Amino acid sequence: MAEFARDASQRMVSLRKETKNKALRKMAAAIVGAKSLIIKANRKDIKNAERKKLSPSMVERLMLNEKRVHEMSRSISKVSLLKDPVGTVDAFIRRPNGLLIGKMRVPIGVMLVIYESRPNVTADCAALALKSGNALILRGGKEAINSNIAIFNALAGAAEKAGIPKGAINMVKSVDRRAVSTLLGLSGLIDLVIPRGGESLIRKISSHSKIPVIKHYKGVCHVFVDDEADLNMAEKIAYNAKVQRPGVCNAMETLLVHEDIACRFLPSLAKRLITAGVELRGCRKTKRILRNFRVKSAKETDWSEEYLELILSIKAVKNLGEAIRHINRYGTSHSDAIVTESCDHAMEFLEKVDSSAVYVNASTRFTDGNQFGKGAEMGISTDKLHARGPVGVEDLTTYKYVIFGNGQVRK
Amino acid sequence: MAEFARDASQRMVSLRKETKNKALRKMAAAIVGAKSLIIKANRKDIKNAERKKLSPSMVERLMLNEKRVHEMSRSISKVSLLKDPVGTVDAFIRRPNGLLIGKMRVPIGVMLVIYESRPNVTADCAALALKSGNALILRGGKEAINSNIAIFNALAGAAEKAGIPKGAINMVKSVDRRAVSTLLGLSGLIDLVIPRGGESLIRKISSHSKIPVIKHYKGVCHVFVDDEADLNMAEKIAYNAKVQRPGVCNAMETLLVHEDIACRFLPSLAKRLITAGVELRGCRKTKRILRNFRVKSAKETDWSEEYLELILSIKAVKNLGEAIRHINRYGTSHSDAIVTESCDHAMEFLEKVDSSAVYVNASTRFTDGNQFGKGAEMGISTDKLHARGPVGVEDLTTYKYVIFGNGQVRK
Repeated sequence: MAEFARDASQRMVSLRKETKNKALRKMAAAIVGAKSLIIKANRKDIKNAERKKLSPSMVERLMLNEKRVHEMSRSISKVSLLKDPVGTVDAFIRRPNGLLIGKMRVPIGVMLVIYESRPNVTADCAALALKSGNALILRGGKEAINSNIAIFNALAGAAEKAGIPKGAINMVKSVDRRAVSTLLGLSGLIDLVIPRGGESLIRKISSHSKIPVIKHYKGVCHVFVDDEADLNMAEKIAYNAKVQRPGVCNAMETLLVHEDIACRFLPSLAKRLITAGVELRGCRKTKRILRNFRVKSAKETDWSEEYLELILSIKAVKNLGEAIRHINRYGTSHSDAIVTESCDHAMEFLEKVDSSAVYVNASTRFTDGNQFGKGAEMGISTDKLHARGPVGVEDLTTYKYVIFGNGQVRK
Repeated sequence: MAEFARDASQRMVSLRKETKNKALRKMAAAIVGAKSLIIKANRKDIKNAERKKLSPSMVERLMLNEKRVHEMSRSISKVSLLKDPVGTVDAFIRRPNGLLIGKMRVPIGVMLVIYESRPNVTADCAALALKSGNALILRGGKEAINSNIAIFNALAGAAEKAGIPKGAINMVKSVDRRAVSTLLGLSGLIDLVIPRGGESLIRKISSHSKIPVIKHYKGVCHVFVDDEADLNMAEKIAYNAKVQRPGVCNAMETLLVHEDIACRFLPSLAKRLITAGVELRGCRKTKRILRNFRVKSAKETDWSEEYLELILSIKAVKNLGEAIRHINRYGTSHSDAIVTESCDHAMEFLEKVDSSAVYVNASTRFTDGNQFGKGAEMGISTDKLHARGPVGVEDLTTYKYVIFGNGQVRK
């Protein structure tokens, strides 16, 4: 399968934009066309999940209904409308000897995506890979195997009919775990691995892989409320970052507050958070300020924990410098925000916080492909090399130097 | 040392261009100032090398004289004149909700460079790392340890005096091999490993490293002479790519010739190559055409060998497609050239050859940092992710998203 994908990828570099976009539109239509087949296959997965007593939240993520199938289809259509970076040349320079040197955007080659539960990942990945000209090998979780196969069949069939090389989109249908180990050893055939799922899955894959991995580990995101913050705005942002959707990686896990405004800021926010069902865990100073509220003591381990639920750790800090050091020490290079009216403080925060997305006066919840104008995403990279933050179509490309001469030789 | 470097790197993100450039100028001067110390230290290494009976070419690479010390110094000065990408923002987009999102160039963090023999690598790496705002840990070969320490002392002292944080440039002075294993496990402190040396060194390091590695494996570079080539130009390019400096990774190892012009093209080139001392290894067709010359039979293994000396394998191919397939199969994603007057053939070659540098009508010998206008290079990447081809200052940076809002929250 990997050889098949490699062959396809070599033919995919010369696919025209129009061919790819037409195929994406056909794929979007095919998903809707196969709606009842997909939902039927999904019922099987749901039944198995219930029999195996998977958690209700797992079952919820697994579940497909008519609305979700239409969303999948719309997401593919959206990708067809995105700008296609493949073949564009970033910059041309003319060297003194007359050589013209440019950087051409090209697909990476063959991508392997290993993912868990949510079957819509199948469709998102297929769309992003095709748009960026990469051949794709999908390996979903066994709990979603029937749904994934039904979605894959619809997509691969439509792509092939639209003139995309066979082997552009592949799915490992075996649930045997050894298949993954084998794939992770094929460094000559596969160029990139993207695991999507829990931290343990990602650690396991990256420690076994002979192929480069783009990782998205956990998001321990911070909001820092500066002493020069608009406290009204700060409250809205902090509340949104924690409560609007606590189970995702760009939700805030730790609130940092400048100690000079902590007394004025914290009580009103704490009241709203507790009303929303948020458990608070504070440093000593925070506990003293919020002595009239139910606040647990934050332990050292709280500062590096990704709760993914309605829990918030709060720390009062002496100054901007302490906030930055805290974030760079306990954060996960994901998303961190400062709320301040001071340009100077904002600039220092932007410069020194070492995260893939650094915000001034906005909620950390915006770190995703759609919100960043990328249409969709393969995940959110917490790595430092190649791609950081939401991984979209352009991030799935690389470049090659193209050099035009008229007989130049080296002296 | 790695913790020390990490601390320094966090302070280096906010170094101003002027501070870095001034430090680079002082470092360039310090190298010249320490000239006699450096040459004295180098004599020790040379004596040890001769005692250990290292090959003359090894000793030659190790050797420093007044001229080479001045070259090192000039190379640092040149880096001080390069554009500084750190802190620039590539693109700003305005989202419908008013968020302003840009991509800011930032240093990668802490880099570990592991290298062999040539002591000038010490100076090149220190200059490139400082310019790009990265802290550096150097680990040179034990055969050059005295030279490296002398160079390092001059550089680190000058940098510190010019206001660069202590810990920005570090050197592992122990020659104990376990030091390398320990460093390669420090994935929380070191962000990037760049090995410079032979293929076996690079394979060993990348298989042991828990940290991302930018690799430069061998260069099996090709020149393809198309049936629509200017044969006069083709001869000059092929001769240059093989003979001008055969021991480097961007020299040609295999010549591919379109069979329709092979009879007209090969004899004259073969004569010049043989006069220059090149051993020819041809496919069956090549041998028939060159039956009046001394040509060995090329074996299957010849197509993937990096000779690094005056040996050339030659293959006649049926057409452009076969040439491209040969390159993508046996090449190493380094540098490959087509000689042709046909725009159509040039475009197809550029699009389909999957190498970091693809040439039309020029010698492959131009793939290096200086020739590409990058001033210097950390090596030539044959990887596909993050950086391809000559790795210069900009390639040693990454980016973070910077997001400016005025209170935006996610709905």
